[in-house]
Amino acid sequence: MMSDLSLMSAADAADGARRVMDRCDILAGISESPDQLTRIYLSPEHLQANRLAGEWMRAAGMRVWQDQVGNICGRYPGLQPELPAILLGSHLDTVRNAGRYDGMLGVLTAIETVHYLHHRHVHLARAIEIIGFADEEGARFGIALLGSRGVAGSWPAEWMARQDNAGVSVMQALIQAGLDPQSIGLAKRDAQDFAAYLELHIEQGPTLELADVALGVVTAINGARRVNCRFTGVPGHAGTVPMTLRKDALNAAARWIAEIDDLTIASGHDMVATVGSLQCRPGVVNVIPGVVELTLDARGPDNEALQRLTATLLGRAKAIAAQRGIAFAAEEFYHMDATPCDAGLQARLHNSVQRVQGRSPAMPSGAGHDAIALAERWPVGMLFVRCRQGISHHPDESVRLEDVADALRAYFDAAAALANSGGERIDDIK
Amino acid sequence: MMSDLSLMSAADAADGARRVMDRCDILAGISESPDQLTRIYLSPEHLQANRLAGEWMRAAGMRVWQDQVGNICGRYPGLQPELPAILLGSHLDTVRNAGRYDGMLGVLTAIETVHYLHHRHVHLARAIEIIGFADEEGARFGIALLGSRGVAGSWPAEWMARQDNAGVSVMQALIQAGLDPQSIGLAKRDAQDFAAYLELHIEQGPTLELADVALGVVTAINGARRVNCRFTGVPGHAGTVPMTLRKDALNAAARWIAEIDDLTIASGHDMVATVGSLQCRPGVVNVIPGVVELTLDARGPDNEALQRLTATLLGRAKAIAAQRGIAFAAEEFYHMDATPCDAGLQARLHNSVQRVQGRSPAMPSGAGHDAIALAERWPVGMLFVRCRQGISHHPDESVRLEDVADALRAYFDAAAALANSGGERIDDIK
Repeated sequence: MMSDLSLMSAADAADGARRVMDRCDILAGISESPDQLTRIYLSPEHLQANRLAGEWMRAAGMRVWQDQVGNICGRYPGLQPELPAILLGSHLDTVRNAGRYDGMLGVLTAIETVHYLHHRHVHLARAIEIIGFADEEGARFGIALLGSRGVAGSWPAEWMARQDNAGVSVMQALIQAGLDPQSIGLAKRDAQDFAAYLELHIEQGPTLELADVALGVVTAINGARRVNCRFTGVPGHAGTVPMTLRKDALNAAARWIAEIDDLTIASGHDMVATVGSLQCRPGVVNVIPGVVELTLDARGPDNEALQRLTATLLGRAKAIAAQRGIAFAAEEFYHMDATPCDAGLQARLHNSVQRVQGRSPAMPSGAGHDAIALAERWPVGMLFVRCRQGISHHPDESVRLEDVADALRAYFDAAAALANSGGERIDDIK
Repeated sequence: MMSDLSLMSAADAADGARRVMDRCDILAGISESPDQLTRIYLSPEHLQANRLAGEWMRAAGMRVWQDQVGNICGRYPGLQPELPAILLGSHLDTVRNAGRYDGMLGVLTAIETVHYLHHRHVHLARAIEIIGFADEEGARFGIALLGSRGVAGSWPAEWMARQDNAGVSVMQALIQAGLDPQSIGLAKRDAQDFAAYLELHIEQGPTLELADVALGVVTAINGARRVNCRFTGVPGHAGTVPMTLRKDALNAAARWIAEIDDLTIASGHDMVATVGSLQCRPGVVNVIPGVVELTLDARGPDNEALQRLTATLLGRAKAIAAQRGIAFAAEEFYHMDATPCDAGLQARLHNSVQRVQGRSPAMPSGAGHDAIALAERWPVGMLFVRCRQGISHHPDESVRLEDVADALRAYFDAAAALANSGGERIDDIK
């Protein structure tokens, strides 16, 4: 473990947090519609947000460029240029009718981190780079992580032809944004360019708020399985078919849903499983349901445990159906592996969070992040910040100024320690 | 218990059953559309079916008239005119796209019963009347049992103004059918006109088929409660809200549905309870359901037991919701008391069924029948006939010729014994 630098002072953190919050408000004004925040990939608003973030990076002493897939990038030099840099960042795009912190808070805290060093004329052993990713949400083309996958070099060829609702393809959108579709391969960064990726993000869930702390360290970004399921029984007259002779599809589905809850809680491993959608046919008050279609969404930070849980749940559905003479069919339509966060980076973040708030909870991320794409090539670590009531992807998304100050202190502490590691060490920053 | 007359011979029963089945086929051809059977109250087809049924009654030696609400009525005189008659019957109207036995089988078996006496020049102590009821299904005006309620004298005043889909009121329909809306009170029959009402009907459920018998005796026509229910939890991100922090409305509803099944089976009393309709909102694969709206349909032959069961089930819903911090609301929107069949008529029917098929199962009726309205003034008894797979209200409705022969034997046996009771007795019919 590296020795610790002095913590950013409370006054400096409060000052920085205020600037971060002000800039979140400014970015929230850059939207395709005046009464809600919507900023989609390669839109004029996206490019405008890039320019603004670029100016803020430049003011923090960084060299700035926009890469070939539309990410805004900045580099703050290190003392030992031969060492891989530390990469910080998050995304600048939004969902439709978004909140103002999802993504932006991470980019602006990263800029504030570098600003703090620059303001004190300090350079650490390693360079620090920041990327404001161009598309994480996937709101425009129905494909997500275009920015971070551009940096990881993992754009599939078929993405170029994907169209938005207006029929504009990714390729046309790149051209309209002044980018060259032939050159997107140049956005890819070498494995040795970065030693680590560190992302700060709002939690988008209620765990930190309920634990009454501002910060938590992410263990992994959950993998997910989505399965379309169908119970097929026999419809019948709700008055004339005795209970024991029924093949009630809804009854079978209900027993399964109750078990999904029990088994998922019992399985531990921070897993979650949800039946979000259920259709019951014919769906009439006085007819026994013959067919129930429902979805299973299971997520967890550990791929093997998630696979086991999903198999167990589907096995129970089959058993419940068989026991009642009902058919069960299931088809997985979405499969995303979990992205574990690097153990060393988790330890580094825990150390920093501990210094700031005394304790440091660990938690999986239920939502996806740019770190998923970057983890293909670099170790990733993530710091979560409490958001009010866990609300996200909604104008009510809200964070506290004090929490952002704590987040800035912990994030700076971790990023600076990493940037200072593996070379000549600066013992402290005055 | 009255002494038993000789059973109708197998050959006579087969002959009568064939005529009944042929006439079911003929009536099935009297429909408002050529490719499916739909015959609604006071339609030209209904009046045509009345005329035909009237001819068949006349051929069976009956005096025939159409009453003031459109029922077709016939009377076969008894030897002791001062004794109340035995009333037989069922209905001649259908649902849309109906089967050909629901209702009609009862009317035609009743006519065949009288035909058998007439053919042998036998009159029993009591007169036998038959009514082909004009509206049991309620397919035209959304109100049911108009025919039998006319005979019971229990039409509410507001029925006159009810309109069909074309905007035609009951009053206008009566006039169009050549009836006088001012005179409907004359359809009402005196309590002392009838000693008993005996109805034969297809089961419309699977119990007899599964018990491998043709005939069963009805204990009661089930009462029913229908309740609109709503669980209101908190919607949330399917990835970020840990299982133990969820207020998942579907999960609560599912646990309740499973308990509905268990508690209804455990409660006995031949009760049934069904959740036929369920809507889950927002209803998206990756969102925890915030609101679930569902219906409860509970039925049973014993009013008190049904009331107790309904209260227990709704109490469990409240408890499940409370335990999970979820709101539960319920509103009863339909309430029909059970109609018990007369104990003496049940015993009479059991005796006859026993003579025909060796055993005589008892069962409640899950569906409604004209006997509900008539039970307000007269003792009622019902005989059920097996139908294939319990299918009814569907073109696939089907009965076996052999079952109809058995039904005719048992129904005749019971009706003749009743008509021969309480006065000078004819010891046998040759």
